[in-house]
Amino acid sequence: EVPKAKLPAGTYRNITGNDALAWGLTAASKLSGLKLVLGSYPITPASSVLHALAKLKHFGVTTFQAEDEIAAVCAAVGASWGGALGITTTSGPGVALKGEAIGLAIMLELPLIVCDIQRGGPSTGMPTKTEQSDLLQAVYGRNGDAPMPVLAACTPGDCFFMAIEAARISVKYMTPVMLLTDGYLANGAEPWKIPAMADLEPFPVSFPTERPEGFHPYLRDPETLARPWAIPGTPGLEHRIGGLEKDFDSGNISYDPDNHHKMTKTRAAKVAGIAKDIPAAAPEVGETSGDLLVIGWGSTYGAITQAVRRARAAGKKVSQVHLRYINPLPPGLGELIAGFDKVIVPEMNNGMLSKILRSEFLVDAVGINKISGQPFKVSEIQKAIEENLA
Amino acid sequence: EVPKAKLPAGTYRNITGNDALAWGLTAASKLSGLKLVLGSYPITPASSVLHALAKLKHFGVTTFQAEDEIAAVCAAVGASWGGALGITTTSGPGVALKGEAIGLAIMLELPLIVCDIQRGGPSTGMPTKTEQSDLLQAVYGRNGDAPMPVLAACTPGDCFFMAIEAARISVKYMTPVMLLTDGYLANGAEPWKIPAMADLEPFPVSFPTERPEGFHPYLRDPETLARPWAIPGTPGLEHRIGGLEKDFDSGNISYDPDNHHKMTKTRAAKVAGIAKDIPAAAPEVGETSGDLLVIGWGSTYGAITQAVRRARAAGKKVSQVHLRYINPLPPGLGELIAGFDKVIVPEMNNGMLSKILRSEFLVDAVGINKISGQPFKVSEIQKAIEENLA
Amino acid sequence: EVPKAKLPAGTYRNITGNDALAWGLTAASKLSGLKLVLGSYPITPASSVLHALAKLKHFGVTTFQAEDEIAAVCAAVGASWGGALGITTTSGPGVALKGEAIGLAIMLELPLIVCDIQRGGPSTGMPTKTEQSDLLQAVYGRNGDAPMPVLAACTPGDCFFMAIEAARISVKYMTPVMLLTDGYLANGAEPWKIPAMADLEPFPVSFPTERPEGFHPYLRDPETLARPWAIPGTPGLEHRIGGLEKDFDSGNISYDPDNHHKMTKTRAAKVAGIAKDIPAAAPEVGETSGDLLVIGWGSTYGAITQAVRRARAAGKKVSQVHLRYINPLPPGLGELIAGFDKVIVPEMNNGMLSKILRSEFLVDAVGINKISGQPFKVSEIQKAIEENLA
Amino acid sequence: EVPKAKLPAGTYRNITGNDALAWGLTAASKLSGLKLVLGSYPITPASSVLHALAKLKHFGVTTFQAEDEIAAVCAAVGASWGGALGITTTSGPGVALKGEAIGLAIMLELPLIVCDIQRGGPSTGMPTKTEQSDLLQAVYGRNGDAPMPVLAACTPGDCFFMAIEAARISVKYMTPVMLLTDGYLANGAEPWKIPAMADLEPFPVSFPTERPEGFHPYLRDPETLARPWAIPGTPGLEHRIGGLEKDFDSGNISYDPDNHHKMTKTRAAKVAGIAKDIPAAAPEVGETSGDLLVIGWGSTYGAITQAVRRARAAGKKVSQVHLRYINPLPPGLGELIAGFDKVIVPEMNNGMLSKILRSEFLVDAVGINKISGQPFKVSEIQKAIEENLA
Repeated sequence: EVPKAKLPAGTYRNITGNDALAWGLTAASKLSGLKLVLGSYPITPASSVLHALAKLKHFGVTTFQAEDEIAAVCAAVGASWGGALGITTTSGPGVALKGEAIGLAIMLELPLIVCDIQRGGPSTGMPTKTEQSDLLQAVYGRNGDAPMPVLAACTPGDCFFMAIEAARISVKYMTPVMLLTDGYLANGAEPWKIPAMADLEPFPVSFPTERPEGFHPYLRDPETLARPWAIPGTPGLEHRIGGLEKDFDSGNISYDPDNHHKMTKTRAAKVAGIAKDIPAAAPEVGETSGDLLVIGWGSTYGAITQAVRRARAAGKKVSQVHLRYINPLPPGLGELIAGFDKVIVPEMNNGMLSKILRSEFLVDAVGINKISGQPFKVSEIQKAIEENLA
Repeated sequence: EVPKAKLPAGTYRNITGNDALAWGLTAASKLSGLKLVLGSYPITPASSVLHALAKLKHFGVTTFQAEDEIAAVCAAVGASWGGALGITTTSGPGVALKGEAIGLAIMLELPLIVCDIQRGGPSTGMPTKTEQSDLLQAVYGRNGDAPMPVLAACTPGDCFFMAIEAARISVKYMTPVMLLTDGYLANGAEPWKIPAMADLEPFPVSFPTERPEGFHPYLRDPETLARPWAIPGTPGLEHRIGGLEKDFDSGNISYDPDNHHKMTKTRAAKVAGIAKDIPAAAPEVGETSGDLLVIGWGSTYGAITQAVRRARAAGKKVSQVHLRYINPLPPGLGELIAGFDKVIVPEMNNGMLSKILRSEFLVDAVGINKISGQPFKVSEIQKAIEENLA
Repeated sequence: EVPKAKLPAGTYRNITGNDALAWGLTAASKLSGLKLVLGSYPITPASSVLHALAKLKHFGVTTFQAEDEIAAVCAAVGASWGGALGITTTSGPGVALKGEAIGLAIMLELPLIVCDIQRGGPSTGMPTKTEQSDLLQAVYGRNGDAPMPVLAACTPGDCFFMAIEAARISVKYMTPVMLLTDGYLANGAEPWKIPAMADLEPFPVSFPTERPEGFHPYLRDPETLARPWAIPGTPGLEHRIGGLEKDFDSGNISYDPDNHHKMTKTRAAKVAGIAKDIPAAAPEVGETSGDLLVIGWGSTYGAITQAVRRARAAGKKVSQVHLRYINPLPPGLGELIAGFDKVIVPEMNNGMLSKILRSEFLVDAVGINKISGQPFKVSEIQKAIEENLA
Repeated sequence: EVPKAKLPAGTYRNITGNDALAWGLTAASKLSGLKLVLGSYPITPASSVLHALAKLKHFGVTTFQAEDEIAAVCAAVGASWGGALGITTTSGPGVALKGEAIGLAIMLELPLIVCDIQRGGPSTGMPTKTEQSDLLQAVYGRNGDAPMPVLAACTPGDCFFMAIEAARISVKYMTPVMLLTDGYLANGAEPWKIPAMADLEPFPVSFPTERPEGFHPYLRDPETLARPWAIPGTPGLEHRIGGLEKDFDSGNISYDPDNHHKMTKTRAAKVAGIAKDIPAAAPEVGETSGDLLVIGWGSTYGAITQAVRRARAAGKKVSQVHLRYINPLPPGLGELIAGFDKVIVPEMNNGMLSKILRSEFLVDAVGINKISGQPFKVSEIQKAIEENLA
């Protein structure tokens, strides 16, 4: 049923999202010059990322299958503390268990990539089915004001690139990053042009080796607001981090009221500031204004694209925006939305991105929600487009 | 600075929020006819609820200090499964750890009261300071579409009544309930009129003893959508529950796509339907329309009330709504909001209720956010009122 | 094949060893006036004790199914600390996991009954098969010099009486007690005369309510060497216990060399002194001297008895001693052994009691070892008797 | 008080027992050609072995600080399963916690070195004091018939050599090995001649790469009774191991009675057979017969040697045997013992080796026991020698 695609020249192979994710993480390790340490606990549909990475130890990849989800993420946090690229892979129930440790990583301001290969929930739910229902957990599922970047891949091959992007943001901004994929991407395969490493942008990490003037562990880069990634044991850079609030000016533990306000605002500003460092919102398909804007994220990409194309072929003024960045949202998204009479948000959940868009832009975004553990069909999106244009 | 209060006649005592919470939970046990089982792990500022309940064993209260937060909540879930009123008390980091088990309780559709005595976050944060920054975690912090009722007490004495209300909703709707208080309520004390048990509305629970026609564990009450609370071991009512999705019509495990959609919608409808069973939104202070509406929740009650009264004494058209129910929101709140030109939302966090209100009502609610680990002063709210009226 | 037994008058019922154990523990609770708290984790073949006790809650029995073996025993230790009769039931792998916590109970000098329903080992072994191979673990399986009483039941009905005896020793001497049964006793049944509670000897526990002269938590009874069982929270009896070594004269933590020597010797003497409080060694069958003594313990009782009787019927000078107490050994056992030319020790393990007897009495005890997960046949013992008499 | 030692030529450095242990383990890794993986959890006085090994990662050493003692040993077992030299270091309470996992390693028949740096017990005991009181736990502290080799180092420098010996036995016989040292060795230092790697005997491990005729995972070498160490994932050598009993002839799970008997006997024979592969018992000091034999093990070496030398200088017919192998005991020990009128066994515990010797050789070995958390003084041993010669 899929028409023969015209693909650019190059070497192709069929790749699943989980394999692409594993390779992307490994590529990120090379691009950054960091060793990769994966702490993981098996869970459907994420386990095959662990399997794939275990086979890549000749690339400096260390995989640790821990005894539970919490041990897994804590090992990854410890690896980052020691100067490696700490990663944990899991699915929704695992993220629920890891919430407290992710919060710790936020407070430590250490790199950490949490890959959530989403499945049908809540609770054990439907492990072998796909869903996008961890979005709000990804954005809000931690105690306190604990913002972290949330990214989402939209095709199997895109898992490769978003893994690199997650790593880039994580080490540049010294923050855990949540990368969302789902069971449909994980196990789905597409012909994928193997990129040349030379075509990928390196982001080499250099650790401080000497004590900079005025060093303290939470001394921030004025641009990124990132703190320095000092490796424990580096002479002159001995320091202490931990889960308690820290003083902005010294990095020591602090219970000062104004300082806590300032630090909370600073952590939020650091994450919000990433918006300057990501591509501005732009239509995947269609113009920047019109009657209807379809906003999606994640594995619904293909179905939405096809549906929008068909609607446009039928003369409808419909455009598509597909979000790879959910926190922060890409710059210009509000202006783009304002150019349309109506916004619909197809999601494989009961309405999550729509909640965020409504709150952020006060737009009456309408959710098109399918919670069956199965991907959208093009026809389902088409029908929703037609109904919302009527 | 506090003027001498005129209090109604009765017996008074000074009570802290944590004591009131413990007594309220115990009263709920009596009003429902259920044994109370608390599974808890010590954490500031929640520990004294455990201490207080441990002293009440002559009222049929069982307290279990578990070895960790997860063991604590799981013991409470197990107690509910066995027909008791299962309760767990904690603070934000504990809720983060319990997220997966709370999701299980949502899927099991069993009563469970999760009391989150909020403190400064994220991570370990500032354990001895107060904050309201677990609101979004309470509403969204679980994998999958996992809605649960979220209630909030607004004074130390109100902890008593909201504990009863949490229990009432939990057993009537067969759902875990999150009850939010915070460090300021927990340790703060107010003169409190001891209520007579006879004045409290009982909500006796009767377990099915015989097999009803067509019994299955997820056979729902058409009114409340609650499933039956059949006690394991009751002859004829043998059944199986668990974290996997269940068939609407038989309660058996199901991977059917349409069924999952239906069950997810049903769980959401059950929680949303509680709105019919709670008081409609009404101003605490002021009229139902005007220039400015101040919407608060939790321990900011006193400061907001005083500030609104002062503004009104100065001739401003300001009203106050204070939310004890955050999920679902009380009926009529949207209409009430629509009667005001502007809405401000003072919170001891970086903007959480405001996010929910913006999304729900597409109102440009302005957050007045203090994240210092300290309660608002009346003057701070007053200033915000004035600035937003200007 | 079993000849019709002539049984004394009374009410009989068929009882399994696990049921008898559960009832014996409950009877001990009544005889001592203590509440019974069982902390347990399911494991074959011990789980049915948990099931049986769970049904006895109207007798003041609290059962707690913990999340793992360690949590289970720790809950029982905590219950004893609070003044209840703390019990944990398990099988060999569970005892291996509980070793550290049992050592804690030894140091705390608190009552605790550890019931090991032995099965085929090592490791997971053969869960559904019987074996006596935890004996040396029971006696020696803890770090440090950590002696504790070890008792063993020898018939299903004897589980009832040995449970009571374990409790009596545990509370009188303030020590954990290991009670060994095995899969053959656990699931085997015998017609059992239900004892009248009035015929059982009570051993009421009275907790100190006022501060005795010179009270400290390790102030010992000069007779039993037991420390006082002061309930936490009793005014005037506030005290602290824990896993670190304590000062003999004050109960405070002590690193004094001579004190540690004294305390280690005292703990050993306390356990050794129990020998004065248990029945002296005496033949079950046969005279106190002869050619061959068959020493057994546990569920081999029936097979050995029959075999010895048959040998005696054939004119052999054979006697049987069956040990219900393995640590300490019953008084007079050495003298009894000295009256025989030869000693054999049939065991369903690779030679454990024989090791202890050899070490204790320097007797060349010969092991008759069957490690097949199956009970001895009478004929197997008979054959061993004959071979060792030849 | 120590006379100036005459030392052989070479390069010397002061070394603690824990450093020597770490280097010995690393040397064993080189001698065997295996990667070393340490799974450990901090505990006094073992932690510095973890610290020392963490510094040796350029020698292919991987150190993993786990979240608890059980996670630590399980990670080491998993490393051995994957073809590395799995090691765990701990002290007595840690061994108590690890007992079940060590039993698993016995059943899996995988290499594993458990280093127990003994301290004062029982329970938490006296963490910073030395003791030899884990001996019986080392030999017997597991469920089922679960024999494993137990070795003991006797000087700080000897920790190096016994670490290598533990590794040699572990990989040759496919069995976990317990290596006992203690706090006195761990922190004590001696001038130590750094050995040349060329002087150490390599024991290269070669994993099967092709499927041998009749391969199954428990197919034993007829000489050592060791099973093959097939690496998971090797094509043609796919196999399954686990904690359940296995069939002698196929390696499949088996509940056959005769098979269990045979396998238990075989596991015991494998460990007992190591006696052929270790040095025969011989006096450290003195002749092979005389009036008094002093048998020691572990860190008492120096004090006993001095005391025996002094007694011999005074004309006493005293000899010393010092055991580096406790299970199995060295060949010829019984004959050696038979050459003496009396045997004394000085130990820093309440009598553990003496129990084993009494049982094994029916010799009335007299314990000289010091349980003060402090090493013996030479004069104390001297006094014991004199008293036992009188």
